[in-house]
Amino acid sequence: MASTAFLKDFHHVASIGATDNKGVDRQAATPEDGQSRAWFAQWIEDAGYALRVDGIGNMFGLIEWTPGAPYVLIGSHLDSQPLGGRFDGAYGVLAALHAARRVDQQVKQSGQPPKFNLAVVNWFNEEGGRFAPSVMGSSVYAGLFDREEMLAVTDLRGATVRDALSEIGFLGSDEAPEPAGYAEIHIEQGRILEREGIDIGLVDSSWYTQKLDIEVLGEQSHTGATAMADRHDALVAAAKIVLMVHDITGDFDDEALVSSIGQHVVEPNSPIVVARRVHMVADLRSGDPEIVRTARAKLLRDIEALAREHDILINVKDFDIRPIRYFPEEGVTLSEKVAANLGFSSRPIQTMAGHDSVAMNTVVPSIMMFIPSVDGVSHCEREFSTDEDMVKGLDMLTDVALELVHGALDADGAQA
Amino acid sequence: MASTAFLKDFHHVASIGATDNKGVDRQAATPEDGQSRAWFAQWIEDAGYALRVDGIGNMFGLIEWTPGAPYVLIGSHLDSQPLGGRFDGAYGVLAALHAARRVDQQVKQSGQPPKFNLAVVNWFNEEGGRFAPSVMGSSVYAGLFDREEMLAVTDLRGATVRDALSEIGFLGSDEAPEPAGYAEIHIEQGRILEREGIDIGLVDSSWYTQKLDIEVLGEQSHTGATAMADRHDALVAAAKIVLMVHDITGDFDDEALVSSIGQHVVEPNSPIVVARRVHMVADLRSGDPEIVRTARAKLLRDIEALAREHDILINVKDFDIRPIRYFPEEGVTLSEKVAANLGFSSRPIQTMAGHDSVAMNTVVPSIMMFIPSVDGVSHCEREFSTDEDMVKGLDMLTDVALELVHGALDADGAQA
Repeated sequence: MASTAFLKDFHHVASIGATDNKGVDRQAATPEDGQSRAWFAQWIEDAGYALRVDGIGNMFGLIEWTPGAPYVLIGSHLDSQPLGGRFDGAYGVLAALHAARRVDQQVKQSGQPPKFNLAVVNWFNEEGGRFAPSVMGSSVYAGLFDREEMLAVTDLRGATVRDALSEIGFLGSDEAPEPAGYAEIHIEQGRILEREGIDIGLVDSSWYTQKLDIEVLGEQSHTGATAMADRHDALVAAAKIVLMVHDITGDFDDEALVSSIGQHVVEPNSPIVVARRVHMVADLRSGDPEIVRTARAKLLRDIEALAREHDILINVKDFDIRPIRYFPEEGVTLSEKVAANLGFSSRPIQTMAGHDSVAMNTVVPSIMMFIPSVDGVSHCEREFSTDEDMVKGLDMLTDVALELVHGALDADGAQA
Repeated sequence: MASTAFLKDFHHVASIGATDNKGVDRQAATPEDGQSRAWFAQWIEDAGYALRVDGIGNMFGLIEWTPGAPYVLIGSHLDSQPLGGRFDGAYGVLAALHAARRVDQQVKQSGQPPKFNLAVVNWFNEEGGRFAPSVMGSSVYAGLFDREEMLAVTDLRGATVRDALSEIGFLGSDEAPEPAGYAEIHIEQGRILEREGIDIGLVDSSWYTQKLDIEVLGEQSHTGATAMADRHDALVAAAKIVLMVHDITGDFDDEALVSSIGQHVVEPNSPIVVARRVHMVADLRSGDPEIVRTARAKLLRDIEALAREHDILINVKDFDIRPIRYFPEEGVTLSEKVAANLGFSSRPIQTMAGHDSVAMNTVVPSIMMFIPSVDGVSHCEREFSTDEDMVKGLDMLTDVALELVHGALDADGAQA
């Protein structure tokens, strides 16, 4: 099928919030996120579909062929990390818009209304860079997070999700469509497909993940006048924790555990003041929950010993624990068949990253697919996938969506 | 002499920008700094003295007895660190105001105009917590820093000194008074006077200090999806540098070197993004310049090796190098004599911290004096000195200022 319009739209959206190095910076509910949302709304209107925005900023473009029937949702997210890549999320939304139009054309040509209707979705705040936790909009939709609680979440400057969404005009009040199934296509963000020369990854499960909120409380003092022996430097203790969290991956097989600290804020952060407080978030992930649990227990013991050694207070709290989620086998089999029909190679794959599909899979049968990432890099400006791979993914999503609206996974509908 | 008015004023100023734990937060050119400045201006006006504000926000209250004669300056700074103490700086300004009034009364009673006039000064941005470098206002006055360059300095949010000073109404255009000498009283910020039970420290020299601006440039990636082996985590490398800067003090005799990192900013600082960049400022100080130079050279070698090991770029720049400065012996002898006359014990002492007096001493003979700090703590809310010690310091400053306006150190006037 012709893919010129899709590629044109994709590369246009990559210009919204574009950075100097070919990335994008469209953090959730910023003006740049607002611009990409306005573009999405205009596209839906131009296509003649109905737009709905729900109470956590999720946007739905609805195609109703069969009045009253629930909707197969396809989509991803247009928000990005700070100085993020232009593919992560946006590719899945753009592919979904064009897949939906193709499915709509085929349904209208066939003259047969399918079992389910179809909606394209742009989920709010998948990235969680500005407002934690990540995968926010789809998790509220799936009933995993409380909407009011999420609206009260603040960024580092104290702005709430509620105010930020209102400010860009996307705190909606529409009812979200009732779901019948979900499909999403995304870049892999790893090297497996590229290394093996495979076109499409068929996600069968997600990794076990958890975060640790770590607060180190020392005592503020003068970097010059305070004797070294009298200091309780929060940053020195925090530096040791950064290394503990990194080094613990060495206790396990290569790449069996990934672990790091991404957020790390020093107070008061003055060149001539010994730090009073460091607040950090550690992120631990593994395909094996036992590995994460073992690593966490060791970190907690080591941090406790460190606090004693430094005569300093360290508070550690678990949060955002996400168990392994399995995608339905029937969905993997279905998309494997679709790939074969299209002449694409495919293989089952795990996702180490969180995705909206993981949240959606808790309420309806969901299908998650990957296309290759060049060099496996992501959450950075040099994230890259080829036009050719993107178009293959669009073809996959189109045919999977067509199967789903015709009820291909309906046997599992009871899960909903 | 009665000190009720001084103590009342001191404790009133401590209420401007007061924090919950008895500290103050009056960072340079913030609204709270503006409030303490307005209070200072009002005090000068009420006392009938002339107020001048120069082009870097230094405030002078002038008492002119001898038309055309240069001025002995006495003072310190009203700005504070974030969540700083209420004594650091403010004590010296408040003591100077009341010392000036006492000297004025004595001069008027004597009917003899002294050789020099007297001015009380509130220097701009001694702390450097918001705008680096520290000791900014007095260094511009002394010709050590360029005024235009300093006005263009930005804080972490991008605001310039020029705009911040304008906003609080204290970017002046008055000519600063011509100096004939300088005296300052300050809390020790160390434990020596308290431990030895000494009333007054007579500062004979300042420590050698230097800062290192350290930029660690890694690559942004996904905390979940990126393999550990593929990461170039700027925060992990930065944590090793924090520990290097701390541990290097162990290479020398106890407390011969103090060294730490107080400012440390992570980008993009998202919980699920491996850090791209960490920017840090290290502060190294010693009574022996050779120790700082040796420590610096070792740090540079170790950081270079670290950069290679992590395959990461690390830029290190020297800045804010301050050599040992000796205060004139005649000034130490003079203040020793004043202390003895008042019945106070005293001893010579070095200052590890930077002070406005160190900058002033490069242009006119300067006298720096300390009163004891309880527990030696400073740059934090629990900084404390007793009313009794503060009043002794006020008496010292009064008598020293009286000597100076009468030309006690005039033999060294050639230094100016």
